[in-house]
Amino acid sequence: MSDKAKPEKFFDRLRIRSRDIGSWVCVGLDVEVAKIPGFLQPLKHPQAEFCRRIVEATSDVALCYKINMAFFEAEGLSGYHSLMETFALIPKDVPVILDAKRADIGNTSKQYARACFEEFGADAVTVNPYLGHDALEPFLEYRDRGIYVLGLTSNPGAKDFELLVCDGTPLYEHVARQVARWNTRGNCGLVVGATQADSFARLRQLVPELPFLVPGVGAQGGSIEEVVRHGPTHSGIPPVVNSSRGIIFASSGEDFAQAARTATINLRDEIRRAIKTAEQN
Amino acid sequence: MSDKAKPEKFFDRLRIRSRDIGSWVCVGLDVEVAKIPGFLQPLKHPQAEFCRRIVEATSDVALCYKINMAFFEAEGLSGYHSLMETFALIPKDVPVILDAKRADIGNTSKQYARACFEEFGADAVTVNPYLGHDALEPFLEYRDRGIYVLGLTSNPGAKDFELLVCDGTPLYEHVARQVARWNTRGNCGLVVGATQADSFARLRQLVPELPFLVPGVGAQGGSIEEVVRHGPTHSGIPPVVNSSRGIIFASSGEDFAQAARTATINLRDEIRRAIKTAEQN
Repeated sequence: MSDKAKPEKFFDRLRIRSRDIGSWVCVGLDVEVAKIPGFLQPLKHPQAEFCRRIVEATSDVALCYKINMAFFEAEGLSGYHSLMETFALIPKDVPVILDAKRADIGNTSKQYARACFEEFGADAVTVNPYLGHDALEPFLEYRDRGIYVLGLTSNPGAKDFELLVCDGTPLYEHVARQVARWNTRGNCGLVVGATQADSFARLRQLVPELPFLVPGVGAQGGSIEEVVRHGPTHSGIPPVVNSSRGIIFASSGEDFAQAARTATINLRDEIRRAIKTAEQN
Repeated sequence: MSDKAKPEKFFDRLRIRSRDIGSWVCVGLDVEVAKIPGFLQPLKHPQAEFCRRIVEATSDVALCYKINMAFFEAEGLSGYHSLMETFALIPKDVPVILDAKRADIGNTSKQYARACFEEFGADAVTVNPYLGHDALEPFLEYRDRGIYVLGLTSNPGAKDFELLVCDGTPLYEHVARQVARWNTRGNCGLVVGATQADSFARLRQLVPELPFLVPGVGAQGGSIEEVVRHGPTHSGIPPVVNSSRGIIFASSGEDFAQAARTATINLRDEIRRAIKTAEQN
């Protein structure tokens, strides 16, 4: 398939690449400037050069990249240039998720969708469900892209609203079910924190065909076993398993890119072993 | 007070300016490029010049401005320049709300807060509550700024989650109550759509000291009477009554800035009349 035409849908591209390279690992580009190795700091756009080296060292073993918008936004004009450059330097066959968690009412969401998909050229984006369907519809209209809606997150504040029980079930389950209903174009996914392993099995049963984006593996300590058991959709779209700091800041020295490659391979292999173990049981 | 030192807190600055100029009107800079008058279109940064003329024509009658981030983000580098220029050209005594609806987990939210308050220099910002308290805490730590949390919005999708009944009360009321609890520094507000007038009285009773940001007046057709009756906090902080398209696109001709001024004054006076009527009853 890889030498044929690129499939139209984001999740098909993701599935095929995952099969081709045997990786579920998403390298999270949470590029905090203070953590970039000192020898890159004097550069005009240290974030861009940092990302270039990380991508060159990992693009054959990473399923995809997740660009965390906040870290670029916080650096002003230099961050803007680095963001655009990072999008440009990632090879075209590697999907890029823009982690922006955007949403607003109709007229405005349309502009956010245009920014994410046309101005930046992201293959997929993360969005926030609070404002409801019409806030997400401008994103959903891009049928060849992926839209990961926040479901259950791995932070302590998840208990404030996401876990609130509404009509007998927690809010995040309402979100998951609604997103499954809105998935008429097959371009919706769900963000589910890996530290919420107890909820994985239940969520997968509830929405068997919504692909998951799973942050929180690595630095936040999520369980790979649960992700492997319940992560893939019933039709086999793999979860995107994101690790950010655990990969890109694996070393603070001149070997940081090589260390990122090693960390990516280690996580890839840890997942492969968990898959093998699960298949044997 | 106006010639003394600027008060530290955003909501005090807002209250004093509102009293000094007798206006609750927030001019919403939803600067959709396609709607900018044709004679400005050939400029290098049409959004910046459009905003400059709007601000020059309205800054003595506008309580504050609300900059809608999405419309600038969608224009790439030119939008970025226009955004920075717009922040720079608004007089220092006029508060600026950055309508960004951001939120993410701790580490990332810190960067968004830094972008909004330090990089762009906003006086206040809109944020999304879905992820809970720790996602908002990095914003709340800026005690001299204002943080308007999404409560009940005026779009149809509000029914999807905001109006979902959890433990006997709708989700947006849980949000309002939590935000009131998190308001230990006196810098929190709530976004409440004007088209949800039925909920105004109840919300004000529930959170007597949370200032409201009220979009949806004008183009979306909200009720000024309800906003006047239940908008101010019990201690007298006025609601910010936002109108965007109704003001900035009041005319598509060369007189657009003058038309924006007239529309701002008309809305200001409509509110003044409603206040007078309410006081007489």
